[in-house]
Amino acid sequence: MISNKINYNIQNSSMIRAMFEEGEKLKKLYGNDKVYDFSLGNPDPEPPAEVKAALREFANSEELKMHAYMNNAGYPETRDIIAQKINQETGLKLTLDNIVMTVGAGGALNVVLKTLLNPGEEVIVFSPYFVEYNSYIDNHGGKIKIIDTDHSTFLPDTELLEKNITANTKAVLINTPNNPTGVVYSREILNSIANVLEKKSKEFGHTIYIISDEPYRKLTYDVEVPNILTIYRNAIMIDCFSKSLSLPGERMGYIATNPDAEDIDTLMGGLIYCNRILGFVNAPALFQKIIAKTINSSVDINIYKERRDLLYNSLISFGYECVKPDGAFYLFPKALIADDVEFKNRALKYNLLIVPGSGFGGPGYFRLAYCCSLETIKNSLPAFEALAKEFK
Amino acid sequence: MISNKINYNIQNSSMIRAMFEEGEKLKKLYGNDKVYDFSLGNPDPEPPAEVKAALREFANSEELKMHAYMNNAGYPETRDIIAQKINQETGLKLTLDNIVMTVGAGGALNVVLKTLLNPGEEVIVFSPYFVEYNSYIDNHGGKIKIIDTDHSTFLPDTELLEKNITANTKAVLINTPNNPTGVVYSREILNSIANVLEKKSKEFGHTIYIISDEPYRKLTYDVEVPNILTIYRNAIMIDCFSKSLSLPGERMGYIATNPDAEDIDTLMGGLIYCNRILGFVNAPALFQKIIAKTINSSVDINIYKERRDLLYNSLISFGYECVKPDGAFYLFPKALIADDVEFKNRALKYNLLIVPGSGFGGPGYFRLAYCCSLETIKNSLPAFEALAKEFK
Repeated sequence: MISNKINYNIQNSSMIRAMFEEGEKLKKLYGNDKVYDFSLGNPDPEPPAEVKAALREFANSEELKMHAYMNNAGYPETRDIIAQKINQETGLKLTLDNIVMTVGAGGALNVVLKTLLNPGEEVIVFSPYFVEYNSYIDNHGGKIKIIDTDHSTFLPDTELLEKNITANTKAVLINTPNNPTGVVYSREILNSIANVLEKKSKEFGHTIYIISDEPYRKLTYDVEVPNILTIYRNAIMIDCFSKSLSLPGERMGYIATNPDAEDIDTLMGGLIYCNRILGFVNAPALFQKIIAKTINSSVDINIYKERRDLLYNSLISFGYECVKPDGAFYLFPKALIADDVEFKNRALKYNLLIVPGSGFGGPGYFRLAYCCSLETIKNSLPAFEALAKEFK
Repeated sequence: MISNKINYNIQNSSMIRAMFEEGEKLKKLYGNDKVYDFSLGNPDPEPPAEVKAALREFANSEELKMHAYMNNAGYPETRDIIAQKINQETGLKLTLDNIVMTVGAGGALNVVLKTLLNPGEEVIVFSPYFVEYNSYIDNHGGKIKIIDTDHSTFLPDTELLEKNITANTKAVLINTPNNPTGVVYSREILNSIANVLEKKSKEFGHTIYIISDEPYRKLTYDVEVPNILTIYRNAIMIDCFSKSLSLPGERMGYIATNPDAEDIDTLMGGLIYCNRILGFVNAPALFQKIIAKTINSSVDINIYKERRDLLYNSLISFGYECVKPDGAFYLFPKALIADDVEFKNRALKYNLLIVPGSGFGGPGYFRLAYCCSLETIKNSLPAFEALAKEFK
């Protein structure tokens, strides 16, 4: 008796549940340390000491109204500190009025899409991609249009992008560093996307937005993640503290805009209004205060870099093909047979929990989340090697 | 360039913003203590000592993964404790599988409506009502159908309800204790609604749900709030800790269902799935743990009762008409002229900030939120008296 669409979707998302349950069964059978779980993006490092210290400080303080409602946009102090931090890094001139605190990046994406979309308007996404985007866009009456990337780099083909933009295109949703591929878009690529959108916005007489989903922006190795607000004035940046501060369960993110964006007051009014009417109301109060004290902190990126290097180099040495990722905590290697779901099943026999690329619009590949312990990675290597040998 | 509907809505919700700004102007001009702000439902009491103690305990603990992702439904421990608490109070047999932790009651309502509604299905609401319901229902493609209450009691007329149910009715959304009227629905009224829905569900061959929004269920004076799950098996109960523990900014609520509800596994699967795809992902982690330790705590209800009694009795003595509320922290008296917006303006001249009943689908009335200090109420009384004299 529930919604037909939701009923259909939960029946069809049972593959992921089945996979999870299979994993749990294996763990019970062989013990946690004998099952190599690369399926979940749940960060393994603890939050930085500064976060724990700030939490203790607020827990022990006598400050009043610390858990009360505030403006739907969030505490002015927190928003100001985030704006100033972006300004330091970019030379832009954001104020707190360019920031809305949100319930994580997932909440932020829903707020942005609700604010922008008229029924049936299109949002372009480059595959492989985070499949929740399908739901997020559909939630607010939009249509997703998927454009494949060049699989030798997993970077967008901007000529293909240009051909796919229509009068009905409202936004291009990018995700860099990328889930599931780990690639980071360079300034050149972003400039090239921006140029296409500027040209097409003029041609069709309406703004085409860039929505840039950047939960992994602090998790990069040796490369820069250019700030999208410096590249395209009608970009909307989404960031969160789930990965950079290992706080995913606390649901803390934000939306940032360029003060020179078209009709900025209406845009910000819309974002704040949608944060309210979607039922988020405001980002959780206490962690907004903690963020204001720890904006310059980060988990130790080298922990992730060491894992990436070990896992990537090992897989290559075993004969896997993989684009070397510069960020996030994912590898997206090619499956050793065309059927990636069957490949996932074959991996299971070695107690390897991996996710088929089909789950990210990238059939023929598989995703490894290396936000697990280095120990798990070390112990898993013989299994990956044996799996590879099966297909030689 | 944002969504036309959102743009239209924010232009038209500027009245509330204007009111807020007018209030801020008055406070600057006359000082905070000379302006009597009854406009906002932001609870004034601090959270109970047990909540503060639990927060300190977790802040000082060395527990790992305290801020990580968990199941989208929430921590099993917290859900189990809530289920057991409901069972103690009702004799029902809920398990943790009947509970989904949510981002406040606003988040919960969106999750429930997303789960239930097919495009164009109707949700019946009794006026006066919390106007966010308009947005929540519209967010998920539903249609709101408003049925007026008997204004001598602000209770639903179940005959009128029965006449208004069509083949297209998916749910009746009730709110008890009520915002804005403060009335509490008795067991008799709830039974009578349930009887109508059972009859009509049979007649139309599909379940009509009760969605019961109960953020104020612990704030009642001398009367019982019957548990809706004991009255109607296809009821979905929504509760939160914003008022009972004075934690509105932390966004902590839950959904509870009856284990005997129709097709309960699909319903629960849908709720958990929608909690994820709407971008909530999970209720904030740390406060879920705090709730598990403080489920039996509450702010001191007598604080609110004292305020209600003083404000209600004073208004009656000044000649205002008002249904005496048994719960929540609102009064909904009759405006002394038909035009409640003009009446709000006249009140402003006495530094009284009130909300016109039109903002709640109840023109000709005004809402007073008495979750401000007793001092504010005492100091405001001469203003209310002078205002009343203007219209004698």
